[in-house]
Amino acid sequence: MNIPRTSFPRVVIIGGGFAGIALAKKLSKQEVQVVLMDKHNYHTFQPLLYQVSTGGLEPDSIAYPIRKILKDFPNFYFRLAHVKEIDIEKNRVITDIGKLKFDYLVIASGSETNYFGNSEIEKYSMAMKTIPQSLNLRSLILENFEEALLTSDLNERNALMNFVIVGGGPTGVELAGALAEIKKGILPKDYPDLDTRLAQIHIIQSSDCILKGMSEQASKKAEDFLEKLGVNIWKNVRVTGYDGKTVSTNTDLTFETATLVWAAGVKGATIKGLDADTFVTKGNRLLVNEFNQVKGFNHIFAIGDIASMVNHEFPEGLPMMAQPAIQQGKQLGDNLLRLIDEKPMRAFVYKDKGAMATIGRNKAVVDLKNWKFQGVFAWFVWMFVHLFFLIGFRNRMVVFVNWVYNYVRFDREARLIIRPFKKKL
Amino acid sequence: MNIPRTSFPRVVIIGGGFAGIALAKKLSKQEVQVVLMDKHNYHTFQPLLYQVSTGGLEPDSIAYPIRKILKDFPNFYFRLAHVKEIDIEKNRVITDIGKLKFDYLVIASGSETNYFGNSEIEKYSMAMKTIPQSLNLRSLILENFEEALLTSDLNERNALMNFVIVGGGPTGVELAGALAEIKKGILPKDYPDLDTRLAQIHIIQSSDCILKGMSEQASKKAEDFLEKLGVNIWKNVRVTGYDGKTVSTNTDLTFETATLVWAAGVKGATIKGLDADTFVTKGNRLLVNEFNQVKGFNHIFAIGDIASMVNHEFPEGLPMMAQPAIQQGKQLGDNLLRLIDEKPMRAFVYKDKGAMATIGRNKAVVDLKNWKFQGVFAWFVWMFVHLFFLIGFRNRMVVFVNWVYNYVRFDREARLIIRPFKKKL
Repeated sequence: MNIPRTSFPRVVIIGGGFAGIALAKKLSKQEVQVVLMDKHNYHTFQPLLYQVSTGGLEPDSIAYPIRKILKDFPNFYFRLAHVKEIDIEKNRVITDIGKLKFDYLVIASGSETNYFGNSEIEKYSMAMKTIPQSLNLRSLILENFEEALLTSDLNERNALMNFVIVGGGPTGVELAGALAEIKKGILPKDYPDLDTRLAQIHIIQSSDCILKGMSEQASKKAEDFLEKLGVNIWKNVRVTGYDGKTVSTNTDLTFETATLVWAAGVKGATIKGLDADTFVTKGNRLLVNEFNQVKGFNHIFAIGDIASMVNHEFPEGLPMMAQPAIQQGKQLGDNLLRLIDEKPMRAFVYKDKGAMATIGRNKAVVDLKNWKFQGVFAWFVWMFVHLFFLIGFRNRMVVFVNWVYNYVRFDREARLIIRPFKKKL
Repeated sequence: MNIPRTSFPRVVIIGGGFAGIALAKKLSKQEVQVVLMDKHNYHTFQPLLYQVSTGGLEPDSIAYPIRKILKDFPNFYFRLAHVKEIDIEKNRVITDIGKLKFDYLVIASGSETNYFGNSEIEKYSMAMKTIPQSLNLRSLILENFEEALLTSDLNERNALMNFVIVGGGPTGVELAGALAEIKKGILPKDYPDLDTRLAQIHIIQSSDCILKGMSEQASKKAEDFLEKLGVNIWKNVRVTGYDGKTVSTNTDLTFETATLVWAAGVKGATIKGLDADTFVTKGNRLLVNEFNQVKGFNHIFAIGDIASMVNHEFPEGLPMMAQPAIQQGKQLGDNLLRLIDEKPMRAFVYKDKGAMATIGRNKAVVDLKNWKFQGVFAWFVWMFVHLFFLIGFRNRMVVFVNWVYNYVRFDREARLIIRPFKKKL
């Protein structure tokens, strides 16, 4: 790879998500050379992907060109690359566009959908971890409704109008809420010749509550909100299979649907060569110490979803969310500079800023450390926080304009099938 | 196709472009049943496609869901369909989703890229008639720059950074201007390790002037503007071939480029079954009379780009632009109602509202009937007119916000490779 060697030590960061970008920003204008690799040329604001899938936001508004984030940092290099392997013997990263030596390596590769080994579900279900995946889901939903118009077979029509979401975490809950609002506000107008009341939205949750990471209060209230919106929540049910038509479960329940969204879990996106059992832990994450060093290495680090940092409060590692990723990225920036200066690094301390989820118009749940609240105010807080963390002034403006419009007009205009999903199959 | 027969006569419109939408709107709330078919579920605002290709606008901002345009019109049906054939014997439209009888048929299928039979150029060049095509071009441009970073072969690198645009009409001119601004304002910051000054932008025009449909004054000034932006204009040169690397011409000139944009011509998108020599005329357009009736038919009409309406001022048919399409759509709405009421139809009279093209920041040319002007004011007029004709309040707001941002910040933020183009090949 065509990157000049300078007198500065080279830090290679794999992944331009929340963690990687926070780290790179922290290292800007410092005496290090930073090479950031990602398979996309943009950062994705993952918390709003469900709004892309449901036509509420344009995909480009939640993406930001990585080159632009760091354009004023002369010692920064971006490479659009798929990382294939880490050669830990020779301190090299092997990619589809060549090899690159590193002095320090930071794995910030995030997480990917976890199908728990079920290849049938992997094949037929929809995921929502990237912008193309979210656009595929948007196309599929709209294509299904267009197709529902054409059949006179009632079962087929219902299957085309039903949605089954597996997983009651924030992604599943937010998607279900958005779909319920579309069902109520948009479908009857767009498809007057379909009885869209028959469209069903199901959330299937393997445990006994939704929004498991949040307070009982938030979980209960979210359930209330969803039920008011007409979403069916099936608790203590585990999905066991899906052949593209029928969802089977570990109970007698089955569901007929043309759209199964798999939001039931994620796992760390590990990389070949850095996947030894000694440090790959539960959920495919890399075990790191309090300095984010991967167990057994001094110069290889992991941050964000891929890193499993265990403490007494989080015995299974910090939650796979934006906040730990951003905080770890920032702190590692400081620590790398300290390490290079041969100063002692500082242990990472997670500042829990709480969690939140939106269910729909005027409906959200927020857990702060000492204050838990739900409803309209929570919803405004949710919007403000998301606008604040969105990268880029233009993106914030455009998202804001869209939200105001959608709120005032009860609408979601990006219901466009730009790239058909089914036709490709 | 599942569409109930009512006591109203059925008008089938093929195509949801400017012409088809104008007609459908005119027929709303009238005693007709309207079935509009399109292969996309959205209307595309084609004049701004070049801004999607160059990252200035998000694709969804210039698309508008067709169902939404006519949602308050109870007797309107939209079908997402590819029309395969017109059965003029049985008055049926044959599509990929079934057959449909019509009482009145309106062809508003628009135009498609004309390669003049050169299949090699068709295979390797990029077109810009649809949103997916424009997104492909956006991806390709960005992928080429990423690739240029990787090669040490100077010729290859230059080819990756060169752009050849064939055709000096509005599309070619507007694209060239936008690329020139990106070259100047964005590439040096995004790719500090590339000598982007070497990137060349060429317009190749087979005749002796660009913007042929406009005044000599506009054409000259546009040439000035482009030359100031560093665009090379090659007049009286005809492109004869392109193998994906080298552009050959009818002269000694050749160009090395990885990106050839073909904007050299369009032709009517005729449909099988309605393609007899008696009424298919120059440029593959359907010859219509002053009521937009296709020659030889009383109940089959053509409007917009596909219709060739000849008068003494336009012996080769009205120009293939938005204005004739919109005006014909509106007028045909009236005429259809008159025809159904057994009243005489009214002859179409084209009101020439002029033409305009933008070259870049503060640079546009406008030809009105009695006033031709160029420069900053023309540019503001161009923007205002485009915002005005854009369908939908949200789209107007979002486009406006983007334009203000781009103007103030000298930026274009949608430089995202959402769906890679090259990887698919």
